[in-house]
Amino acid sequence: MNKYKIIIEYSGTNFVGWQKQTNGISIQSCIENALFKLTGEKTTIFGAGRTDAGVHAKGQVAHFEIKKVISLDSIRDGLNQHLKKNPISILKSEKVDNGFNARFSAKIRTYQYRIINRRSPLTIEKNLALGVFKKLNVNEMKKGAKFFIGKYDFNAFRSIDCQSSSSVKTVNSCEVNEINEEITVDVSARSFLHSQVRIMVGTLIEIGKGKIKSKELAEIISSKDRSRAGPTVPAHGLYLMKVKY
Amino acid sequence: MNKYKIIIEYSGTNFVGWQKQTNGISIQSCIENALFKLTGEKTTIFGAGRTDAGVHAKGQVAHFEIKKVISLDSIRDGLNQHLKKNPISILKSEKVDNGFNARFSAKIRTYQYRIINRRSPLTIEKNLALGVFKKLNVNEMKKGAKFFIGKYDFNAFRSIDCQSSSSVKTVNSCEVNEINEEITVDVSARSFLHSQVRIMVGTLIEIGKGKIKSKELAEIISSKDRSRAGPTVPAHGLYLMKVKY
Repeated sequence: MNKYKIIIEYSGTNFVGWQKQTNGISIQSCIENALFKLTGEKTTIFGAGRTDAGVHAKGQVAHFEIKKVISLDSIRDGLNQHLKKNPISILKSEKVDNGFNARFSAKIRTYQYRIINRRSPLTIEKNLALGVFKKLNVNEMKKGAKFFIGKYDFNAFRSIDCQSSSSVKTVNSCEVNEINEEITVDVSARSFLHSQVRIMVGTLIEIGKGKIKSKELAEIISSKDRSRAGPTVPAHGLYLMKVKY
Repeated sequence: MNKYKIIIEYSGTNFVGWQKQTNGISIQSCIENALFKLTGEKTTIFGAGRTDAGVHAKGQVAHFEIKKVISLDSIRDGLNQHLKKNPISILKSEKVDNGFNARFSAKIRTYQYRIINRRSPLTIEKNLALGVFKKLNVNEMKKGAKFFIGKYDFNAFRSIDCQSSSSVKTVNSCEVNEINEEITVDVSARSFLHSQVRIMVGTLIEIGKGKIKSKELAEIISSKDRSRAGPTVPAHGLYLMKVKY
């Protein structure tokens, strides 16, 4: 068998998410269908991050195995040809050895959350960022972000649907940046709990609004109490940016 | 009567353009309807730039006159409330004196054209930029852009539908920039011929592809021959960025 790794960009707006589900079209199933059209082989593809409905990706990674040997250019261009109707694009393809697993070999996943902080509703960026109307204190958010860095029990920052057996995770970096009216939050970790980034960002926004003080964050983390953290922000501001191996 | 100026952002994708037309919904008519709901007065609004179908705006300007006096915050927020279903957003409102005219008082209009130069199709940016698959020579495009600056007869760079009596225009600046895979072309002038920016960009792309040499541009301009210039690039990469008074 021949194993390939692909890097994928997509707009998550009209999908049920990365993973195959019965209630709509997933990114995974679109790529599997395209792969079948290209190779004639029924193959499962495995993604590095199972992004939720509405979440976008600029650097999702997946792997698959096929019997045929196909040139890397033909994999990228052939898949893109068959994906044409969908907002999914293969940016790159690589040959990898048998030991590679897009999900389990990943060392660092980086997500970005985009906020547009202004009074007027969003138009061009409507499904591509979260509009926050109240003026946020970005300096306080920057201070707050530092409390997330390190190895903690992130139980206060997981969705009630989260099936992970342990809620201990290590956040490698968490950075808040501001350019004009846009505020971005970049978070990196080997892996995340379900909705972890969206609850972290929701909490940083509460800090930006002055509802939570940045220095309270250490206490909120150690409380392990979901009700102490901020709300889960909408999926449409979130991007899977990069997976490092 | 009280005269107001508004600054407007919109996604042009699903509109027939700025101006009222019989074949679909225009941005102008949406704002006029919202204004009627807000004030109870039937009013015409006048825009600085009559953007075509698919063209976006981050800084369109318009003016209108009403009998009522309404606070500036109420104009912005009230219009946005009534525009909610549409990707049109009022960024700012100002009171102006009777002599102000959004179209005729404008001193400089600035447009930006966004190109994403990569082999893979666009997803997130699908209707927001033009995907160009062939690698462009940006340095040649930068050299070419300089030939557009100045007062010339731009007859080679106008659509056959252009109704302007004179094709002499003064381009104040034309700049090509590159950040990663994105190339932007920023063009400023007091006014433009119909499709002028899109034909200028189409010609710069031909230069980037090596089909036209940058130094040929002076000759193409002076030929006044539309067939010598490049194609008209699609509307969806174009943004009306700013109007200066």
